[in-house]
Amino acid sequence: MSDRRTQIMEAAVRVIAEDGVRGLRVEKLAAAAEVSTALIYYHFKDRAGILRAALEHINHRAQTYTDVPATNPRTRLEQMLLRELQDTPEVRQNSIAWGELRATAAFHPDLRDSLRTTTETWNSDIAALIREAQTAGTVADSVDPTATAERLTALVEGLSERWHSGTLALPRARQLLTGAIELELTSP
Amino acid sequence: MSDRRTQIMEAAVRVIAEDGVRGLRVEKLAAAAEVSTALIYYHFKDRAGILRAALEHINHRAQTYTDVPATNPRTRLEQMLLRELQDTPEVRQNSIAWGELRATAAFHPDLRDSLRTTTETWNSDIAALIREAQTAGTVADSVDPTATAERLTALVEGLSERWHSGTLALPRARQLLTGAIELELTSP
Repeated sequence: MSDRRTQIMEAAVRVIAEDGVRGLRVEKLAAAAEVSTALIYYHFKDRAGILRAALEHINHRAQTYTDVPATNPRTRLEQMLLRELQDTPEVRQNSIAWGELRATAAFHPDLRDSLRTTTETWNSDIAALIREAQTAGTVADSVDPTATAERLTALVEGLSERWHSGTLALPRARQLLTGAIELELTSP
Repeated sequence: MSDRRTQIMEAAVRVIAEDGVRGLRVEKLAAAAEVSTALIYYHFKDRAGILRAALEHINHRAQTYTDVPATNPRTRLEQMLLRELQDTPEVRQNSIAWGELRATAAFHPDLRDSLRTTTETWNSDIAALIREAQTAGTVADSVDPTATAERLTALVEGLSERWHSGTLALPRARQLLTGAIELELTSP
């Protein structure tokens, strides 16, 4: 991705996290990214193009902060999921913007293909780690990697949204997620 | 609740489910509810008052469609959760509107108290059923009713939002939820 494109996407995630998708006007994004509106149209064609690219960018950012140099796949798995529930500006921004784009997709079908692709990527990354942990002998073979990955990522989304909407304190969210991971991975 | 108040709230849930919170202008709500804007202001004071009342109304509606005349508490519990994932116009509308209000609360702190109260009510209803099932001997005593209730309701929200955003098919969402209930309630 070109530097300018990255610069625009970083600003888009910030603007969405601050004001929601409804707050994302192209003029405002241009000001936040310190580029011209023409450059934004050149890279993303229209507002829908910006939103779709923002979903991919959020996914890409998440890979950087959830990547764990851990020794064993089960620890990596736990850390990858728990790192989505961290009170750092980057994670908070990413997570609020992701939730907002997901909620918006209920009303904007043109966002759904990108949302489906990014969600499936996340699910398969988690499922792959579960399989690795099974090979390493730290997760029981009876665990269904695909279903477990889908449930754990959907739970992360549910807990994140409660966190951002002020319904659930972050330490409790992390505690609940830790409990779910334990239950899912040690099933008989 | 007066008939007119109910009539306005039914229209509010419908409008939010169709166009999102951003689509809810008081003039539009008045037209949808077939009442005057003055009557809306009389009952709800302002737009924030409408949104707060809508959250309570959604919770109230959910109680009617999730109520199960079941024989034993464990079956009631399972049915209460699974009935949030049904493709009927009422459930779909309620669930989309609830998700939209929850997402909006990330940007509108004045919605948070109502959201917290309605979420806590839901969590305690589920926790109470888990305790009943424990008394009846159909759920292990080692299960933590509060944490389990919080996780299962957060998962319902996460799965619902994937359903509405076109990321997850409804039958799969129900299957994943059934698996989670099984895991949570039969833990050692």
